[in-house]
Amino acid sequence: MKCVACRSDAPTVTGAELAELHPQVSEWEIVEQDGVKKLIRVFRFDDFAGALAFTNALGELAEEEDHHPALLTEWGRTTVTWWTHKIKGLHRNDFVMAAKADELYRRLSV
Amino acid sequence: MKCVACRSDAPTVTGAELAELHPQVSEWEIVEQDGVKKLIRVFRFDDFAGALAFTNALGELAEEEDHHPALLTEWGRTTVTWWTHKIKGLHRNDFVMAAKADELYRRLSV
Repeated sequence: MKCVACRSDAPTVTGAELAELHPQVSEWEIVEQDGVKKLIRVFRFDDFAGALAFTNALGELAEEEDHHPALLTEWGRTTVTWWTHKIKGLHRNDFVMAAKADELYRRLSV
Repeated sequence: MKCVACRSDAPTVTGAELAELHPQVSEWEIVEQDGVKKLIRVFRFDDFAGALAFTNALGELAEEEDHHPALLTEWGRTTVTWWTHKIKGLHRNDFVMAAKADELYRRLSV
C-alpha cells in the first residue's frame, strides 16, 4: 500500500477501522497525547549506531512518502511515533507507515 | 574540551558548577525528568531532511566521544537531550557535548 495525499478534512480512522487496522500492526501501541491519537513502537538495537541506521532508513522512507514520523534515537533503541498532523489524529496512512517500519526492521535485523 | 571517562561514582555537577557552566550553553534548558536533571535544546531546520542531517552529524560526534544523547528528529526540528545515565544526572561532559552541538549547528547553518 502507498500513502494517499492527506487533506485537513480527511477523516481520522473510526473505531471499526481501528479494529481492522490495529491487529495488522499489533506491535504498535495506540497512545493519546494532548488529545491526539498516535501509533508508537520501540525498536531495539545492539548499540547507538544500529538505532541511528534505522532512523536514517526510516527517514528516507518517510521522505519518499512525504509522511514524517517523530524518531527518538537513543543508545540501543529508536522510538517511532506516527500520526497525521493535519487531522490531529490517526489516518490509514499512519498504519501503512507503521507496517513499512515493521518490514524495514525485519529486513535490517536479518 | 573533551569528554572524560565517566564512572558511576563520578560526581554530578553541583549548584556552583551549574552556575558556572549553564551560562556557557545558555540556549539549553535544564529540565528534571523522573528525578534526573537533563540539558535540552530544540534546533530548528527548514524541513525533515535538515533535521535528520543534524541528527546524523551529532550522532557521529556522540560516537567519537562515546557519550550519547537522545535525539528526537521531527519535521523541521531536532530536540537534543543530554544527561549521564551512569550518575543519573548532569556531568561536566554533558555541558561539553551541549557546546559541541551548538558549534555544529552554527557550522551547518552557515
